[in-house]
Amino acid sequence: MAEFIEPLERLADMFRRLDGVGKKSAMRYAFNVLNLSDDEAIEFAKAIISVKQDVSLCETCQNISTDKICPICASSKRDRSVICVVEDPRSVVAIENTGHYNGVYHVLHGVISPMKGIAPEHLKIKELLRRLKGDEVKEVIIATNLKPEGDATAMYLYKIISPLGVKVTRIANGVPVGGELEYADEITLRRAIEGRHEL
Amino acid sequence: MAEFIEPLERLADMFRRLDGVGKKSAMRYAFNVLNLSDDEAIEFAKAIISVKQDVSLCETCQNISTDKICPICASSKRDRSVICVVEDPRSVVAIENTGHYNGVYHVLHGVISPMKGIAPEHLKIKELLRRLKGDEVKEVIIATNLKPEGDATAMYLYKIISPLGVKVTRIANGVPVGGELEYADEITLRRAIEGRHEL
Repeated sequence: MAEFIEPLERLADMFRRLDGVGKKSAMRYAFNVLNLSDDEAIEFAKAIISVKQDVSLCETCQNISTDKICPICASSKRDRSVICVVEDPRSVVAIENTGHYNGVYHVLHGVISPMKGIAPEHLKIKELLRRLKGDEVKEVIIATNLKPEGDATAMYLYKIISPLGVKVTRIANGVPVGGELEYADEITLRRAIEGRHEL
Repeated sequence: MAEFIEPLERLADMFRRLDGVGKKSAMRYAFNVLNLSDDEAIEFAKAIISVKQDVSLCETCQNISTDKICPICASSKRDRSVICVVEDPRSVVAIENTGHYNGVYHVLHGVISPMKGIAPEHLKIKELLRRLKGDEVKEVIIATNLKPEGDATAMYLYKIISPLGVKVTRIANGVPVGGELEYADEITLRRAIEGRHEL
């Protein structure tokens, strides 16, 4: 097989390390880079280095941050008595975008998954437990995904946190707003009925 | 809208400049980079710079090359009397992979497209004409795509090259090898019949 010239092949190899990028897309991206201006290419290379150099984890909530303590943890306006536990930084952005949560967060960086070899000690759980010492935290909301692995992680956390006298809650399962009942799967619908509330 | 931290947003912006990368994929890729090792990230950044710095166009055929003259043009084993004209470097690799072409190439870097504002002067046509001076070249095979723009480009080249006394040919339209006739579109099938040959 004829190959492309070495610099393009090498760059395509790097693109292939990104999730869901196959051989053809990777080569297309490498050609795209070839067509960027010199300045854009330099900007791209710097952006990659910057993500590694300037981003670390907030010492408190473990969310990605450019500061030692992230803006949410540092804010005097946030309610430190409620911690919402999520699996990744994207969940934080999603919840912030609701505009209806004023507590703080804790990012686990994954969920427990025996299939993928992810055990509790691979997650930021001991950092969470450290935050629960003292009386400040009244409630931990577990907002991991609503799939079996997220549910199992929620149960695991419930078992180790509730003995500490902290209330542990789980975000609700249900039919999405705007969703048609006929398109909801059976388990979602069953949980939506179980979780019904008075109007 | 809450945003991700600045270095991630900046990197995602760069990924969005690649063909077919939307907002969500761009952010996913930025997170992937965050999870690369430091060494991998440096390698990635260097690969981007290298594609811009080390790749130029072959002075003869205009294909991308790390040398002033590409290995195909420099090879003493290639037949310089036949030039296959293609629209991009990917076509060169595709034809090389057939293992059945021993001539040289000329890369136009596009096809004429009034819709996209691509005129003949935007393509490497004058560089092609320069190669046709003298008697060395006997045939120019036009292997632009078989869509209207590729066909129009082929006609344009035919009109300016044939007066120079050089034979101009076009790659064949037809039913792909292994293709079922019922799945071939009507124009392809019509051209396959028109292009029939004796067995």
